[in-house]
Amino acid sequence: MTAKLYALESSFNQRSKVRVGEAEFGRDFVLIAGPCSVESEAQTLLAARKVKEAGAHLLRGGAFKPRTSPYSFQGLGIKGLKILAKAREAFGLPIVTEVVDPRDAGWISEYADVLQVGARNMQNFSLLREAGKIGKPVLLKRGMNSTLDEWLNCAEYILAEGNPNVILCERGIRTFETYTRNTLDLSIVPAVRELSHLPVIVDPSHGTGRASLVEPMSLAAAAAGADGLMIEVHPDPAAALSDKDQTLSPEAFARLAGRVLRLRDHIRNDEGGGRGNH
Amino acid sequence: MTAKLYALESSFNQRSKVRVGEAEFGRDFVLIAGPCSVESEAQTLLAARKVKEAGAHLLRGGAFKPRTSPYSFQGLGIKGLKILAKAREAFGLPIVTEVVDPRDAGWISEYADVLQVGARNMQNFSLLREAGKIGKPVLLKRGMNSTLDEWLNCAEYILAEGNPNVILCERGIRTFETYTRNTLDLSIVPAVRELSHLPVIVDPSHGTGRASLVEPMSLAAAAAGADGLMIEVHPDPAAALSDKDQTLSPEAFARLAGRVLRLRDHIRNDEGGGRGNH
Amino acid sequence: MTAKLYALESSFNQRSKVRVGEAEFGRDFVLIAGPCSVESEAQTLLAARKVKEAGAHLLRGGAFKPRTSPYSFQGLGIKGLKILAKAREAFGLPIVTEVVDPRDAGWISEYADVLQVGARNMQNFSLLREAGKIGKPVLLKRGMNSTLDEWLNCAEYILAEGNPNVILCERGIRTFETYTRNTLDLSIVPAVRELSHLPVIVDPSHGTGRASLVEPMSLAAAAAGADGLMIEVHPDPAAALSDKDQTLSPEAFARLAGRVLRLRDHIRNDEGGGRGNH
Amino acid sequence: MTAKLYALESSFNQRSKVRVGEAEFGRDFVLIAGPCSVESEAQTLLAARKVKEAGAHLLRGGAFKPRTSPYSFQGLGIKGLKILAKAREAFGLPIVTEVVDPRDAGWISEYADVLQVGARNMQNFSLLREAGKIGKPVLLKRGMNSTLDEWLNCAEYILAEGNPNVILCERGIRTFETYTRNTLDLSIVPAVRELSHLPVIVDPSHGTGRASLVEPMSLAAAAAGADGLMIEVHPDPAAALSDKDQTLSPEAFARLAGRVLRLRDHIRNDEGGGRGNH
Repeated sequence: MTAKLYALESSFNQRSKVRVGEAEFGRDFVLIAGPCSVESEAQTLLAARKVKEAGAHLLRGGAFKPRTSPYSFQGLGIKGLKILAKAREAFGLPIVTEVVDPRDAGWISEYADVLQVGARNMQNFSLLREAGKIGKPVLLKRGMNSTLDEWLNCAEYILAEGNPNVILCERGIRTFETYTRNTLDLSIVPAVRELSHLPVIVDPSHGTGRASLVEPMSLAAAAAGADGLMIEVHPDPAAALSDKDQTLSPEAFARLAGRVLRLRDHIRNDEGGGRGNH
Repeated sequence: MTAKLYALESSFNQRSKVRVGEAEFGRDFVLIAGPCSVESEAQTLLAARKVKEAGAHLLRGGAFKPRTSPYSFQGLGIKGLKILAKAREAFGLPIVTEVVDPRDAGWISEYADVLQVGARNMQNFSLLREAGKIGKPVLLKRGMNSTLDEWLNCAEYILAEGNPNVILCERGIRTFETYTRNTLDLSIVPAVRELSHLPVIVDPSHGTGRASLVEPMSLAAAAAGADGLMIEVHPDPAAALSDKDQTLSPEAFARLAGRVLRLRDHIRNDEGGGRGNH
Repeated sequence: MTAKLYALESSFNQRSKVRVGEAEFGRDFVLIAGPCSVESEAQTLLAARKVKEAGAHLLRGGAFKPRTSPYSFQGLGIKGLKILAKAREAFGLPIVTEVVDPRDAGWISEYADVLQVGARNMQNFSLLREAGKIGKPVLLKRGMNSTLDEWLNCAEYILAEGNPNVILCERGIRTFETYTRNTLDLSIVPAVRELSHLPVIVDPSHGTGRASLVEPMSLAAAAAGADGLMIEVHPDPAAALSDKDQTLSPEAFARLAGRVLRLRDHIRNDEGGGRGNH
Repeated sequence: MTAKLYALESSFNQRSKVRVGEAEFGRDFVLIAGPCSVESEAQTLLAARKVKEAGAHLLRGGAFKPRTSPYSFQGLGIKGLKILAKAREAFGLPIVTEVVDPRDAGWISEYADVLQVGARNMQNFSLLREAGKIGKPVLLKRGMNSTLDEWLNCAEYILAEGNPNVILCERGIRTFETYTRNTLDLSIVPAVRELSHLPVIVDPSHGTGRASLVEPMSLAAAAAGADGLMIEVHPDPAAALSDKDQTLSPEAFARLAGRVLRLRDHIRNDEGGGRGNH
């Protein structure tokens, strides 16, 4: 690792906090939920209302979608962002949305409360620098073939621009296993906490690619020490335009949210309170 | 998958139980602990006493060690098995030990309560068939590059010989990540439960290769639905002849055992009792 | 794969040709050589002269370097491009250089004869679209964890903008093996030729990470049917600012170039001429 | 690596030779060909005649097949060995066949001229030791997730028993790529030659899993410095009981054999004769 790593600067007992709305990553266990893509106003507002009722702190939704093929649905763009802004207004949920082009980081950040840098762009250094300059919280997903060292160095690109508000997000790595879409690497959670002061959350939707595995892996992530979760939820998963196999219904998310938050409470009480870590 | 898979035969509500001593895999949350290798009588008896006090149900210890190099310590062999037998007698702990050669399966099973088939031998089909014929419980570790389908088919080799007492054990897969020795694939736990009736436990010691990650990944495994854990514990980890970086002290294991069992109690209570699964 | 893939449009007997200077990818066996980074005018001009003498058709050199750490040498930027332009003028070698930001594609293309999109940016779709709009030849490296299907779809992003001049470049994938820096996947060469009309070259420097393996893997690439090679050459490899372990001296490159071109001649003669494929 | 490695003992200029019949691995470029499985006497004798006519030096054929599922065809066993013996007698081709159980190594070696240890058994140390004791040449396939270091250590298990006749065989490693069955790692060929004196051959049939890729990868293997090839050939590939997608017809093999041997001749002449290596 390089000599001067802001990501590693603080001590373990001074973990970074990143405030977004009323939630604080690094202190609260933060639930981010919502559809993979913003498909329509009705779908998004319904999803927002449902995840809010189920206990989500932030709303996720993609307006610019990086897709393998240039002929796949690429998202609604600016129209999608305006729908997200409406959802925020209606339900008081801060917005997490992805930015894929450094030229867009500035104006997207007027709609977004958290800028997401996706797995494919983890090492898009121009994008990282722009996200750093803007200063809004950045959710930095781990690349699907990235080592911990590479990931922390990408966080460093943002931090080095003077933006301390970085939230890491594990979303599964690419391996030979085909039963799951990716292999969710939960051991990275305590590993991040060993090396860095940054909060780290887990995305079990992309991490497993199977709705049936999202709840058990959410519980496991919470037990491993994650600072939150990012979950794909759609009012009607079977009708989702993207990622439908891994998307939960609002009811399934509500059940998950309850179980995970009770698990975290148990763990905090079991630790004797206030150690903030196991 | 093949047409006739005993591993898949039962329904989800009739999960297999494998009894070993007073513990029952598939019903209890079973803790297996002990040194990587049997090094001496003193070391083994001390380890056995300590892990027993800390709540372990079974004692693990290797007498025949498959090692990368032919010039590395290969285990004490029969002498090691006799030491394990003494430890069983002294502390009432059933013994889990590895068998690496089909010619040895018969006589080793006179010392062992559970025959372990290691990751390197997962597809040693002759060994699987011998282990199947003997009828004693078999702990089948997942190969470090094995898919779920391949692993269940290896269980099938044992089951097809008429031995229903198979316990699966996830121990990490080989990926590009180097911070951890392997990548512990906890999503395989709910995946196994989706496809099979067999109990599945987790070995976070090999799965991470780092003592500091063993406790958080043990909690995560329990939350993911594992039926137990297998943990390397040595009276003096720094002096261990093998795997010392991933070995816990008895004190660290005692702390882990307490936390994991309380976590499981919380989960069972939270489920409303008796569903036996999430 | 998607329905409409320009990358797959032509038949096998009508492979695409991409002309750059006097070389034509898809017809000639094209040698691209030069330093990893442009470090100084003297170093670059010397490297250019030497690789020209040894038979290279194009000069490579990085002015914008995507680096893991923000504190590593990031390249000379515009100054580096001007040095490359001088080398082109002095020795008549067209220039291949990397672009990492969609905002830079336009003006960098005034210096570059071929725009390189690096492995980390393979799925930087904004960058691919810009490269497509500009119309200059694009050298598209395979991402280090990218499947063939994903790679061809990235080519499609460029082709869909109306730019047919795409050259694919295999540069090794990330696996568990540590002896080599990456695992050079030469089977992708005939696989590309099976599915696509695009020319495909090989970079054994990044593909192996070891200077001693560059020549044998160059011969192997030529035998597998590659349309050319991209090789890191530095006047004084031990003094290179980046990638020195995998960089050849001009003398080693000259030897390699001779052997590879004679091997290609043998293969073409052995095929009886004109079948355009083996 | 360990202190005392017989595999590394000799210098580069004194590469080991392993004689089998009239062929000598490490001096000649040796072609091993034949069906995946011995299915019947007619099929095997026909295959033997055809590969002999096409220039093969040794006949391969599996009598004991390690299969993922216990319910798949497991080979003809002893009956298959007797068929192989007939084929040897009829056409003068030495036999390469797999052994999967240490208890069988002794009597199988009465039929086999070369004992094959397959990829799944690379770290079956009991089997390696038995193969070492018997003294016949051993073809040691690389495990599908094995590093070079682990592979050479497995060779060492055989050498340490006093058997110097080890031939290494690269057969593809497991990666994320799905277009090919495995990823053939040809860079391991010059890497083996850098570290060890042992001959190394390549199996592009398993290495790619696609008949269309076998010829180009055979040429590439020869160019990379391999000491030979192992190719699956069946009189009627579409009717093969196993591995039919990767199996060549006798005609395709004859064409391949001619091209590869002419390529090797070119390379040897180009080297100026007698350097025996590039």
